[in-house]
Amino acid sequence: MPDRTKIAILGSTGSVGVQALDLIAQFPDRFEVVALAAGSRLDLLADQVRRFRPRLATLAREDKLADLQEICGPLGIAAAAGEEGLSQVATHPEADRVLSAIVGAAGLKPTLAAIRGRKTVALANKETLVMAGQLMLSESQRSNALLLPVDSEHSALHQCLRGERREEVSRLILAASGGPFRLSSREEMEAAGPQEALNHPTWDMGPKISIDSATLMNKGLEIIEAHWLFGIESSRIQVLLHPQSLVHSMVEMRDGSVICQMGTADMRGPILYSLTYPDRWESPLPRLDLAAAPPLEFYEPDSLRFPCLGLALGALEAGGTATVALNAANEIAVAAFLAGRVRFFDIPRTIEKVLEKHAPVPADSLAVILQADEECRRWAEQILMKGVAA
Amino acid sequence: MPDRTKIAILGSTGSVGVQALDLIAQFPDRFEVVALAAGSRLDLLADQVRRFRPRLATLAREDKLADLQEICGPLGIAAAAGEEGLSQVATHPEADRVLSAIVGAAGLKPTLAAIRGRKTVALANKETLVMAGQLMLSESQRSNALLLPVDSEHSALHQCLRGERREEVSRLILAASGGPFRLSSREEMEAAGPQEALNHPTWDMGPKISIDSATLMNKGLEIIEAHWLFGIESSRIQVLLHPQSLVHSMVEMRDGSVICQMGTADMRGPILYSLTYPDRWESPLPRLDLAAAPPLEFYEPDSLRFPCLGLALGALEAGGTATVALNAANEIAVAAFLAGRVRFFDIPRTIEKVLEKHAPVPADSLAVILQADEECRRWAEQILMKGVAA
Repeated sequence: MPDRTKIAILGSTGSVGVQALDLIAQFPDRFEVVALAAGSRLDLLADQVRRFRPRLATLAREDKLADLQEICGPLGIAAAAGEEGLSQVATHPEADRVLSAIVGAAGLKPTLAAIRGRKTVALANKETLVMAGQLMLSESQRSNALLLPVDSEHSALHQCLRGERREEVSRLILAASGGPFRLSSREEMEAAGPQEALNHPTWDMGPKISIDSATLMNKGLEIIEAHWLFGIESSRIQVLLHPQSLVHSMVEMRDGSVICQMGTADMRGPILYSLTYPDRWESPLPRLDLAAAPPLEFYEPDSLRFPCLGLALGALEAGGTATVALNAANEIAVAAFLAGRVRFFDIPRTIEKVLEKHAPVPADSLAVILQADEECRRWAEQILMKGVAA
Repeated sequence: MPDRTKIAILGSTGSVGVQALDLIAQFPDRFEVVALAAGSRLDLLADQVRRFRPRLATLAREDKLADLQEICGPLGIAAAAGEEGLSQVATHPEADRVLSAIVGAAGLKPTLAAIRGRKTVALANKETLVMAGQLMLSESQRSNALLLPVDSEHSALHQCLRGERREEVSRLILAASGGPFRLSSREEMEAAGPQEALNHPTWDMGPKISIDSATLMNKGLEIIEAHWLFGIESSRIQVLLHPQSLVHSMVEMRDGSVICQMGTADMRGPILYSLTYPDRWESPLPRLDLAAAPPLEFYEPDSLRFPCLGLALGALEAGGTATVALNAANEIAVAAFLAGRVRFFDIPRTIEKVLEKHAPVPADSLAVILQADEECRRWAEQILMKGVAA
């Protein structure tokens, strides 16, 4: 039997983590789970521990460590909690590949730890590159760690670029489903509550990402990620709405040729790619049947109904910690929207106000980044408390 | 100034040749035309000679050699004619890259000469691989000559496969516009004359290829070509009708990921790629604007209305000279149809009869191939003379 790929998962009980484990279970001879880190869902983590028998399991919530130890102890599995636990999973000495799938800014530190630990990092956490793109890139170059995208769009771009030279790329074209409000009026969007916004037409994702997809902030964050992952300036990254979600993204080369990647709207495709690259494995996932699929449509996004796209581009062009401010304000505003505290367009309004208030500085250390993050979150909360229109 | 790529063109006055020269004229610092071979169109060749000043110009028609010499002589350009002329162009000592763009079986010998002469061959002549795929592949391996496809479909597959490993390919999916009869009934097709059949909806091509596109024999020949170019067995090569002709072909990898190449329906895209590969040049060609394009549709082809597809697959599976018989019968029947001598479905009927009569032998030498070709052409003529139904 050839050596199995040894995987550590940051965020094993989230949407991407669960799907990754579903895939890993289908290749028992080729994958081995060595470490799992979850947030607060002890029961699901306990199931995963019993099923995959890692060397280490950790929970973010330190108050549940004793419960976790009770489950892990008899199985001879180490247990840990909090930041220290996350860091142990990210740098587990047996892990070849770390899947970074914690949602939000909490994924930043352990991802940086995995990069510094020279792991191959399968990156599902958008915030890592949005908040700390420059830092992550310079650290991954220094430690020679490979950063592989897990997002379907960036996985598509990565696949399109496999045989291409960077200097011959003309444009990256990110595909966007358009989310649940693609055809809604501004008025309908303003009146929408969390349930409508969570009702994503094509992709099955976690709540934070689903709201980002409804505002198109998702695409804004992806432009920033693509900029760092592929070294292409923002003016050469375009977004096209593609409601069928079968074309996952495209690259236009300078001779006019467009290379695109397609597949079913199933996150397990890009997850598997990120866990096997540079190999492609025979996979049990459903195949794309284009003859049975609806016609493929493409539209320019409407910047009036989707102001988050322009806010993200503006932050990327402002540089430094501006994208930290963008992300912090977005996370706070989305949480407030999900809690039913504010309306849909209060999300971009909050972000705009935070960006106005924030004076960007170079994002060249984790300390600077986390300080900007904390400050902008506080401002966003204050803006939301006072009422965004104030 | 860097060295210019020195080009020889077999078939300079045909559709592909003319488009290639149009492109070459746009890169005067990077391309140089060293030799041109035309069929019978002396006037157009004379224009090309005056414009591009090659070292050598040749005509297939030997009776016009004196006229050609009269034009070339004062310019210090060598002139030749007939098979000897073709061979000189194909193996011109100054040529780096030979564009093989003669339509039909006549392209076979000079293409083989170019391969044996260790040229990089940009191959627009389908018959080379259809009639002599095995021979061409073994000769190109022996002489280390690179064979690059010019057909938009094979160029697309070549581009999709740039970064991929052959053993990880699951399927090649050839895109077909469906031609002018995609939506016609069998009765309408049987009643159609050359004008209707030549009326191709998306691509601007020569008459022989336009008829092949109406019968879908074009796709049948392309399956055979793709088999030899990419080393994929016929059962893993699929055809999908795609009336918009913007997706030029696709590759499904074994993990389910589909890589596709898109572009405007302009042959100059794949021609330029074949002349610059492995580089991609900044090109003046129109860009694909998907937001302005119609939705992209895909359909399974109907084997009842397009029997040529099944005939081609059958010939490829029969092996050896069976594809020579297929091609010979098709060329004769298409010429008869273009001359108004027979009806549309007489094309597949003639091919079927010739394939039944022909006992395939290994296609391992040019002599065997040309003998089978000659015999099957004679049979096809006889079948057409007697009336196909007889």
